Amino acid sequence: MALAYPHFIGSDKSTVDAALMVTASSPSRPPVILTQDELKKIAAYKAVEFVESGMVLGLGTGSTARHAVDRIGELLRQGKLKNIIGIPTSKMTHEQALSLGIPLSDLDSHPIIDLAIDGADEVDPHLNLVKGRGGSLLREKMVEGACKKFVVIVDETKMVKHLGGSGLALPVEIVPFCWNFTAQRLQLLFSESGCVAKLRNCTKNGEPFVTDNGNYIIDLYFKQDIGDLNAASDAILRLAGVVEHGMFIDMATTVIIAGELGVTVKNK
Amino acid sequence: MALAYPHFIGSDKSTVDAALMVTASSPSRPPVILTQDELKKIAAYKAVEFVESGMVLGLGTGSTARHAVDRIGELLRQGKLKNIIGIPTSKMTHEQALSLGIPLSDLDSHPIIDLAIDGADEVDPHLNLVKGRGGSLLREKMVEGACKKFVVIVDETKMVKHLGGSGLALPVEIVPFCWNFTAQRLQLLFSESGCVAKLRNCTKNGEPFVTDNGNYIIDLYFKQDIGDLNAASDAILRLAGVVEHGMFIDMATTVIIAGELGVTVKNK
Repeated sequence: MALAYPHFIGSDKSTVDAALMVTASSPSRPPVILTQDELKKIAAYKAVEFVESGMVLGLGTGSTARHAVDRIGELLRQGKLKNIIGIPTSKMTHEQALSLGIPLSDLDSHPIIDLAIDGADEVDPHLNLVKGRGGSLLREKMVEGACKKFVVIVDETKMVKHLGGSGLALPVEIVPFCWNFTAQRLQLLFSESGCVAKLRNCTKNGEPFVTDNGNYIIDLYFKQDIGDLNAASDAILRLAGVVEHGMFIDMATTVIIAGELGVTVKNK
Repeated sequence: MALAYPHFIGSDKSTVDAALMVTASSPSRPPVILTQDELKKIAAYKAVEFVESGMVLGLGTGSTARHAVDRIGELLRQGKLKNIIGIPTSKMTHEQALSLGIPLSDLDSHPIIDLAIDGADEVDPHLNLVKGRGGSLLREKMVEGACKKFVVIVDETKMVKHLGGSGLALPVEIVPFCWNFTAQRLQLLFSESGCVAKLRNCTKNGEPFVTDNGNYIIDLYFKQDIGDLNAASDAILRLAGVVEHGMFIDMATTVIIAGELGVTVKNK
């Protein structure tokens, strides 16, 4: 997917730097076409501007958060950041951060986190999120629930009028024991919203996708708005067999959106 | 522990049968002293009277439920019950039922259960329960939440004025990831009730106890009544990292209590 990004020419890091610079526009230049991944990178780099030396940082998971973690590693190597402690939200991010030389810890040792940066699959106008299409929703929710500031980074395709509105999944992590029974109960819970519940399978081998916690993911698809998010959250959590869901309600403090017309920062 | 059981003489099965018979008292006989286990057996045998041929049965876990499962196996062998399908609530009960020749299935194949029989650690005056000191709370709640009738069997020491009132634990199943962080958050949630949260360890080797679902158990001890149970339940379930808790609110339809003065049956 390619989007026109106005007034900047270039690619890779130079594009990102250029896009983040507040410069006078140059109408003679043609608009730059940026890929979705470049937009993600722009949002990620902007978010890392919030990072200060000495911070305990929640490190997100997924294709957008990966750029932020890379950037933090780069600034550490350059000596522009010091004394950072990272709390990864998945085994994958743990590996990435280790390879970049970012010092790591966990919630048991650092139960209060200064700032977390992570992507999201959907963002509604109240900055409520859907997360977990990458499968790390539980650890992300634990880490990001312990943050003073939670900065979310997305490209503009993630903005929705209401959660579930993209037509993509709301993920629910469940125990494997009688997963089909739990999936049926989830679907029934939202039958008025035309809900369809599907077990997530691995694309590689067709086996059920297994989370870092040894659980399964049920993806819920809605035809209509599910209404009151807090009520929906409690109803899901009350089902025995459910471990966590991917709605992050009233958790994000800032959302950085990279889009065709530039970077938008929304604060709670 | 031994309790006086009036007007019946005997032990083992004969004691149970005698205790369940409604006979004229014989004042000249001395009261029989029954152990706590014998009282459990009396309650279990009484509960099995609710079982009819052709039923799908939820099979509980623990020292009291074990007697009910044994009794069901016995009646099947004797031909007094037929076409029973058992849905075990733990790996342990699965093994026990298999050894007794009880045909087994699961919630995926039988999502509606006619009757479940299980023990409890505490029963309040509204028939709300604490369960899970045996560690099987999640599967028990899944199975017993799918029942038309849920018969709870206890000896009278399990009756409390309010849940947590015995001074014993309210168990909470949590994911192992950063368990100490989750334990601290649980303790903080009920700080006004003087809550102390402890990781459950195996008595054998001192390692954390691991549930059938690969999770840990945090035992919560309260100095005071925790108040509104539904509010407490939602607050626990909203903590990311919590899988399930051992409060079974408004689930039991019948409680059978074996005590010094005989068997009491309470219906919802």
